[in-house]
Amino acid sequence: MDLHPDLEPLAFLIGTWQGWGHGDYPTVEPFDYEEEISFQPGPGKPFLLYTQRTKDTHTGEPLHTETGYLRPAGVGRVELVIAQPTGIAEIHTGGVDGTHVHLRSAVVEVTPTAKDVSDVERHIEVDGNVLRYRLAMAAVGHGLETHLQAELMRR
Amino acid sequence: MDLHPDLEPLAFLIGTWQGWGHGDYPTVEPFDYEEEISFQPGPGKPFLLYTQRTKDTHTGEPLHTETGYLRPAGVGRVELVIAQPTGIAEIHTGGVDGTHVHLRSAVVEVTPTAKDVSDVERHIEVDGNVLRYRLAMAAVGHGLETHLQAELMRR
Repeated sequence: MDLHPDLEPLAFLIGTWQGWGHGDYPTVEPFDYEEEISFQPGPGKPFLLYTQRTKDTHTGEPLHTETGYLRPAGVGRVELVIAQPTGIAEIHTGGVDGTHVHLRSAVVEVTPTAKDVSDVERHIEVDGNVLRYRLAMAAVGHGLETHLQAELMRR
Repeated sequence: MDLHPDLEPLAFLIGTWQGWGHGDYPTVEPFDYEEEISFQPGPGKPFLLYTQRTKDTHTGEPLHTETGYLRPAGVGRVELVIAQPTGIAEIHTGGVDGTHVHLRSAVVEVTPTAKDVSDVERHIEVDGNVLRYRLAMAAVGHGLETHLQAELMRR
């Protein structure tokens, strides 16, 4: 299936990525995790399906997972829609500079029984077969602070 | 892997469902579609991963897809978080009566380049190996009107 032409500037993301990350936040004990991320083009459609899951490095226990769509939104611009099983939906707008995607939440909405998250920043950078990301969030009364950093290799 | 006890009231949804549906809205030509829906438990976690895709009945061309999570939210209550590649995020609250799940959007958010959708109602009913759903939406200036209806069989 041919790649939709609007996805060409995002083609560097396509694939499955595996690696390790570190999590930190004022309200939690620092933690390490194993992670798999995938970006796959919708067949002939102008979006990438994003899936993600992490496991505890020591116990192998599943930790977080999330899914959503990255969509081109004009030259050098992208939008991201994410759903999380913790009851969180994020809508981001951002840009693509070469192989660096920078996103900031336009809206974060949570279900009535979810934790309060109000702002999220996501940076993804690809360098050959290495993908690094950094996620900062404002949650449960704290300002925007780095929460997750990880380095993954193309599988 | 054991099912999380909170998921027992939703166990009737778990599986992969295939069938056909019909779409209608004041702004589009009526259309028919083939569909596959899946509800799968997160390993040991209290949520169901929901995935959905449709194809044009005549041409086989991919039409819509969406993904998200259904989560128990106390006795007889559920929450649903959905991401759509069309730039839409939905947060629903609702209830479960036997094998009928009724959901109404608490919030619908769209990216800057998405179509305007402001309200969504989703009903899912399972009768043995048959799943029927009805989706109504308020979009692009129209009030809440039935948009999709489908009948699927457990695969």
